[in-house]
Amino acid sequence: MKTYTANITVTLRRAILDVQGKAVEHALHSLHMPSLGNVRIGKHIELTVTAVDHDSASAAVREACDKLLTNPVMEDYQFTLHELAAVGAE
Amino acid sequence: MKTYTANITVTLRRAILDVQGKAVEHALHSLHMPSLGNVRIGKHIELTVTAVDHDSASAAVREACDKLLTNPVMEDYQFTLHELAAVGAE
Repeated sequence: MKTYTANITVTLRRAILDVQGKAVEHALHSLHMPSLGNVRIGKHIELTVTAVDHDSASAAVREACDKLLTNPVMEDYQFTLHELAAVGAE
Repeated sequence: MKTYTANITVTLRRAILDVQGKAVEHALHSLHMPSLGNVRIGKHIELTVTAVDHDSASAAVREACDKLLTNPVMEDYQFTLHELAAVGAE
């Protein structure tokens, strides 16, 4: 078994108004940073996966995203998987 | 002036207990996904920056992170900057 680290980025779909992002944008402008705009706020999830290979680790992460971590109606996700150095004891 | 897109990832420092991550981890295990663990939840912020060059865009993002987007006591951040195709009208 190998251990992988997954970095998942969950973002609100483009078509959906990002209220939190708008609030942050207004705050940035109030703080005299008018050069920043189009703020969109999402989630970043980091987790470890124990699996026999990269493909099954990827399938496990996708299942977790579909079942729990994201709202498929409003959000999109993408992730990267990196194998951790051998951790035989885990 | 050029326009850049910044992708900022804000994570809770390692030393700080991630209660939300723990809750998600328990939920994953309840959903019969025991191979996933060490869940840590952070924020992903996407925004556009208008600046003369890469360096000043980077400085603007760093200022926004330090002043508003992150809590320097509890959180770390990292970001990437990509130049958007020329948008002379902006």
